[in-house]
Amino acid sequence: MDIFVLFSGGKDSSLSAILLEPFFDVTLATCNFGFGETWKPAAKVASELGFPHEVLRIDGAILESACEIAVSDGYPNRAINHIHGCALSRAAAGHGTIADGTRRDDRVPMLKLPDAQRIEDRYGCMYVRPLLGYGRRAVDALVGDHLEIAEDESEKIDKSDYEVELRAIIKERHGAGMVHEIFPRRHLQSRVVRRKK
Amino acid sequence: MDIFVLFSGGKDSSLSAILLEPFFDVTLATCNFGFGETWKPAAKVASELGFPHEVLRIDGAILESACEIAVSDGYPNRAINHIHGCALSRAAAGHGTIADGTRRDDRVPMLKLPDAQRIEDRYGCMYVRPLLGYGRRAVDALVGDHLEIAEDESEKIDKSDYEVELRAIIKERHGAGMVHEIFPRRHLQSRVVRRKK
Repeated sequence: MDIFVLFSGGKDSSLSAILLEPFFDVTLATCNFGFGETWKPAAKVASELGFPHEVLRIDGAILESACEIAVSDGYPNRAINHIHGCALSRAAAGHGTIADGTRRDDRVPMLKLPDAQRIEDRYGCMYVRPLLGYGRRAVDALVGDHLEIAEDESEKIDKSDYEVELRAIIKERHGAGMVHEIFPRRHLQSRVVRRKK
Repeated sequence: MDIFVLFSGGKDSSLSAILLEPFFDVTLATCNFGFGETWKPAAKVASELGFPHEVLRIDGAILESACEIAVSDGYPNRAINHIHGCALSRAAAGHGTIADGTRRDDRVPMLKLPDAQRIEDRYGCMYVRPLLGYGRRAVDALVGDHLEIAEDESEKIDKSDYEVELRAIIKERHGAGMVHEIFPRRHLQSRVVRRKK
């Protein structure tokens, strides 16, 4: 059975792919709005993990509306959830089984159960979240078993998550100050270096 | 990493064990209150699937209180959830990582997220629900890939779930009429025959 997994190149979506691998034919897909070649770090991680990788092109108007939501809220969560819902719908329109790396204890991005069911009903697809039944400690333990992780200061890491293009469009439209206002500063960020086994 | 999986011998807990197998050392465990040798069908399925199996003895007082809840409610759901919470606590007291077969679309047994987190915090364990991110169609598809299932009329199937001893104690204390009042009649029940691959 084929499964199309939304993939940022981070720990959670990497672990999701690994958990699905024995049971599905996994293809990883990284979203891109055309605002930069932001899929490249994820494509590199996908190659390290040994999975085929695609870029999932999404209408730039969705990024525009996410930008408006983030600026209006002064906080990125609702904007990121908006992008994630649109990305899932886009994936569901073309694939029978889709997945992502959202975890039990995540707040963002995270679809509520009725919204997840609505995507399945609307597109006749199956939407699988392999980490939804795993808490933070269990995810960390499995990541430790299967992935080599490096931690660096946030600015030094090339990432492929929704935040990259969202930051870029906010910076272009509203300046760097607005970006710093909306996104709380994180000191350490992790990146997947390679698979252990 | 060892994982201790609550196991009724049904489709969902069988599939959970199969999904966990590539990543954990799985032991299956069937609850028993000493009200009958109800673990035997599950032990047989565990052997068919190729997993080690244990009986998890639980204090009969818990079955007594579940009986009272079911009779008072006239419906089994809250009683079954009460048993499941107690079974998870019992499992968590002796094992670092526990699991069960509860699915995304289940209503009973199903712990709410704060209750799941409370068990983890109280016992310092990890509580994993491998099917929580899978909807009914995805579970059915994976069951079809991995398990041979037979369907029979309810009465003909020997089962090992909580309902068996709960029905037995209600029958002993309140008569067969009360059992039929509390448990809605189901026409077809499924049982796991063997593993396909």
